[in-house]
Amino acid sequence: MYKQAIVVRKDLKMSAGKLAAQSSHASIASYNLVRRKFPKIADEWERNGMKKIVLKVETEAELFEYLELVREAGIPAEVIRDAGHTQLEPNTVTCFGVGPWEEEKIDKVLGKLKLL
Amino acid sequence: MYKQAIVVRKDLKMSAGKLAAQSSHASIASYNLVRRKFPKIADEWERNGMKKIVLKVETEAELFEYLELVREAGIPAEVIRDAGHTQLEPNTVTCFGVGPWEEEKIDKVLGKLKLL
Repeated sequence: MYKQAIVVRKDLKMSAGKLAAQSSHASIASYNLVRRKFPKIADEWERNGMKKIVLKVETEAELFEYLELVREAGIPAEVIRDAGHTQLEPNTVTCFGVGPWEEEKIDKVLGKLKLL
Repeated sequence: MYKQAIVVRKDLKMSAGKLAAQSSHASIASYNLVRRKFPKIADEWERNGMKKIVLKVETEAELFEYLELVREAGIPAEVIRDAGHTQLEPNTVTCFGVGPWEEEKIDKVLGKLKLL
């Protein structure tokens, strides 16, 4: 079973719409990374309903700690920086997308994080 | 200039995480629709930073009214129904994704809606 995870910074106090847009960005960016390198995984995830969880971290430092763990585990991930046209300073790191990848492997790395 | 719009029901009182997940779902589904039928548009949108807005409607009826207008305008769109494992009843329509498509054409149809 494959799933995708999106890890979002809670400390930025983004509006619901901003948060949804940034998460969507991370979702497509990470999906495209997987699609290009591991097309069968992307296809299977899509066929099975695109399971997805959104998790939260409290700080930028915590975001990067978990991103590093994801990378060390060999799981594809894409970081999103906001263009900064609204609400945030340019290049603020807002979230990252992980996978789709094997659910167990994602849970092993991100299992401690709480749902947003 | 191409952009994507996501139109979300406000009346369901989804949590921020649920909303982000549903929006991401709509974003990928609509992107894939465009990518398969109009790959050049999808590519150009991706290269130019995947511009995206998240808009709100107040009811299911309003969602379908706008979806119909989008379809009548010939703009690709995908409706998302929640599997209903958490928070919502199974098959609840939560949102729809539009495009990426020409910004002007999207604005012509959805320009009255407010940002989420």
